[in-house]
Amino acid sequence: MDGETQSLESIVNTNLAGKDLEEFNRIYYGRKNHHEVNLKDSSIAAAKDNDFEIAAYAFPAKKESTRPPRIVKVGIIQHSIAVPTDRPINEQKNAILAKVKKIIDVAGQEGVNILCFQELWNMPFAFCTREKQPWCEFAESAEDGPTTRFLKELCIKYAMVIVSSILERDEKHADIIWNTAVVISDTGAVIGKHRKNHIPRVGDFNESNYYMEGNTGHPVFATRYGKIGINICFGRHHVLNWMMFGQNGAEIVFNPSATIAAEAGSEYMWNIEARNAAITNCYFTAAINRVGYEEFPNEFTSADGKPAHKDLGLFYGSSYFCGPDGVRCPGLSRNKDGLLIAVMDLNMNRQIRDRRCYYMTQRLDMYVESLKRVLDLDFKPQVVHETEK
Amino acid sequence: MDGETQSLESIVNTNLAGKDLEEFNRIYYGRKNHHEVNLKDSSIAAAKDNDFEIAAYAFPAKKESTRPPRIVKVGIIQHSIAVPTDRPINEQKNAILAKVKKIIDVAGQEGVNILCFQELWNMPFAFCTREKQPWCEFAESAEDGPTTRFLKELCIKYAMVIVSSILERDEKHADIIWNTAVVISDTGAVIGKHRKNHIPRVGDFNESNYYMEGNTGHPVFATRYGKIGINICFGRHHVLNWMMFGQNGAEIVFNPSATIAAEAGSEYMWNIEARNAAITNCYFTAAINRVGYEEFPNEFTSADGKPAHKDLGLFYGSSYFCGPDGVRCPGLSRNKDGLLIAVMDLNMNRQIRDRRCYYMTQRLDMYVESLKRVLDLDFKPQVVHETEK
Repeated sequence: MDGETQSLESIVNTNLAGKDLEEFNRIYYGRKNHHEVNLKDSSIAAAKDNDFEIAAYAFPAKKESTRPPRIVKVGIIQHSIAVPTDRPINEQKNAILAKVKKIIDVAGQEGVNILCFQELWNMPFAFCTREKQPWCEFAESAEDGPTTRFLKELCIKYAMVIVSSILERDEKHADIIWNTAVVISDTGAVIGKHRKNHIPRVGDFNESNYYMEGNTGHPVFATRYGKIGINICFGRHHVLNWMMFGQNGAEIVFNPSATIAAEAGSEYMWNIEARNAAITNCYFTAAINRVGYEEFPNEFTSADGKPAHKDLGLFYGSSYFCGPDGVRCPGLSRNKDGLLIAVMDLNMNRQIRDRRCYYMTQRLDMYVESLKRVLDLDFKPQVVHETEK
Repeated sequence: MDGETQSLESIVNTNLAGKDLEEFNRIYYGRKNHHEVNLKDSSIAAAKDNDFEIAAYAFPAKKESTRPPRIVKVGIIQHSIAVPTDRPINEQKNAILAKVKKIIDVAGQEGVNILCFQELWNMPFAFCTREKQPWCEFAESAEDGPTTRFLKELCIKYAMVIVSSILERDEKHADIIWNTAVVISDTGAVIGKHRKNHIPRVGDFNESNYYMEGNTGHPVFATRYGKIGINICFGRHHVLNWMMFGQNGAEIVFNPSATIAAEAGSEYMWNIEARNAAITNCYFTAAINRVGYEEFPNEFTSADGKPAHKDLGLFYGSSYFCGPDGVRCPGLSRNKDGLLIAVMDLNMNRQIRDRRCYYMTQRLDMYVESLKRVLDLDFKPQVVHETEK
C-alpha cells in the first residue's frame, strides 16, 4: 500500500493552516475545530504495538431540563484480512478474529458501548471471483456459529453490544446463504439479525450470484445503549432503506461496507451518502469500509473490458461518524486498520428534529400515493409538454 | 463581504499542488482534473466589466452506437440583490432584472440551452421579517407577470429555456401566494409551473407564514433540450421529493435555493444533498444559491436567543452541477455574482442506470407497503427487544 494517499484529512492537515484550515473544516466537516476526545495511554500504546490507528471525537448535544444527557460511546473498526486467501478457510477466519480481537480489547478498555465492524468482517470479499467454493464455506449460523460465539464472550466481558456482519448459512431453510448483520447484546445474547436488503449487480460486486435480497424488513434493535439499525453496504445508495430505519425509530444507523477506490469506484461518494442519510433522517450514522488489497488464487475479470487479474484494487477504509445535524468527524485512514470512537449524546437527534422539522414536513401521504402509481404497470409519469398548452 | 472566504475551491487551489491536489480532487469532486470548457473572449470581458464570475465544465458520456450524443448546455446564475430593500418594490425588482439581464445575455451568447436562477431571484429573501407588507407586493402572475414577460423575450432571442423561481400571486384563487418555479420554453411560451412542495419552519425561514405546501405534484417539463424538474430550496432535504422527479423521468433537476452560512446554517450540507440526489436518482442536478447580505428596514429576531438585527447573514452562493455518477464540478464563489455552465451529455444518465441498477434494485413495492404502515395512526415500528427472545 506504499504510495497510497493516507487520507483526504492528511492532505488537508499537511497543507492548510490557520484561517484556511478553519474555513475548510467549517465548510467540509461542519465544524472549525474537531472535538477530539482523549484516549488512554494504554490504548495509544496498544494501537502502536499492533499497527492500527485510533481516534475519538465527541458529538455533544445541548443541555435539556427535562431529560438527562444520553451519552453513548460508539466504536467502529476497519481492518484488512490477516493471511493470504489461499490458506484453509478456518485458518483465514481465525487469523482475522485473532487480529481484530486486539482492537476489540482496546475498544472495551475505552468503555465503548456499541461496536460495529465492516461488512463481512471475518472473510475476504471473494464475490469478485464468482466461485462458490471455497468461499461459501465462510458462511455460518448467525445465532451460534463460531464468529458469534467468539463475540458473545467479548460482549459479556466488556458489557458491549456488537454488530457483526457475516455470511449467514440458514440451516433451517435448505442451507441457503444470506448477507446478515447479527446484533449481540451486552449480555451475550443474540438480540436479532438483519439481512441485506439491496444486492449489487455491478463490476466486481457479483453478490447476486451468492445471496438474495433480505427478508427481514428494517428492524431497529433496542439495545441497552440505544436503538440501532444496520444499512448493509449497497443499501447506502437507496434512500428508502435509510428512511425506514428512521421511521422505525433508529437513533444510530451503521453502514458496514466493502467498497473500492478503483476508477469506477465509490470513493468520492463515501462522504456523501451516509452523511445525507444522517441529515435527512436526523439520526447518527457510521460508515465503515474495509481496508487493503485482497488477492485471490484464481484470476477473474471485472466486466470492464480489462484483462483478467487477481485483486479488486484498494478497499479505501476512510470510516467515519456523522451527527444528525450532518456534522462529521475526520475519518480513519485509507490504508490502515483502525478504531474510531464517537462519544455521542443521543439527545441531539430530537433536538435536530425539533429544529428542522423534516419528519413533520415530509408529506408521506402524498408520496405513498405517488409511489404506488409508479408501481402500476400502466404508470403514466407526470410529464408536461409544451404542445399540451 | 470583505474578509469572507472566497470558496472551498480557492482554499484548496491556493494551498495544494501536484499529487496532493489531484488526490484531493479525486476524493472530493470525483475527478483528478476538471474538464474545463473554453469561453468566448467576449464573455470573459463582459463578466469582468459587470463584476461577475464565469466558468464552464464538461460532463461527457461514453459514445454509443445506437444513440447519438445528447449534448445540452445548461447555465445557472447566482446573484445578490441590486438596490437597498427600502426602495419601492418595482424599483428593487427592476434593478435586479436589469443587473441579471447582463448575465443572461452572456449565457445566451455562450449558447446556453437551459438556464435557471436561484430561488425567488427577483426579490430579497424577506421572509425573515415575517412582515406581509410590502414584501407580498413582489408576488406576480406566473403566466403573465412582469418577470415572466421580461424573460419570454430573452427565451425567444436566445432560443433558451428559462426556469424562473418567483413569488406567485394566484389571481384565480382568491389572490393567494405560492412559491413557484415557472418554466418558459425557447418559443417564449410558459410550459408550466411547479409549486414548492416542502416549506421550512426554522430560524429565519418563516416561509410557512407566507405560503402553503405546493399542489402541483412532481411535474417534469419536456423541453426541447431535455426533461427537467425543479426541487425548490427546502425540498432538497426531502429525499422523496428528489425521487419523484426521477420516477417521472427528469434528466436534470434544479435546486434553486436561498440558504445561509450562519452558525446553524446549511453550508456544510450544500455539497451533500444535491449530490446525493444525483447519485441515488442517476440524473444531473444543479444546486443554486443566492449571494450576499440583505439588510431589511426593520429589525427582526431569528428564534435563536440572540438580539434583534436587520440581516440574515451571508447567502453563500457556491452553486454547482453534479453528474448522475456523483462527480461534480467546482462551484461558483461564496460571495460574488456568477454564471456557471455545464456541457452535459444526457446519455450519461442511462449509462449510469445500466451500470449501477439502482432503479432495478430499489424494491419499491416493499417500501410502498412499509410507508403506508407508517401513516397508520396505530403504526407499530419494527423494534426488536432482547427480552422478546
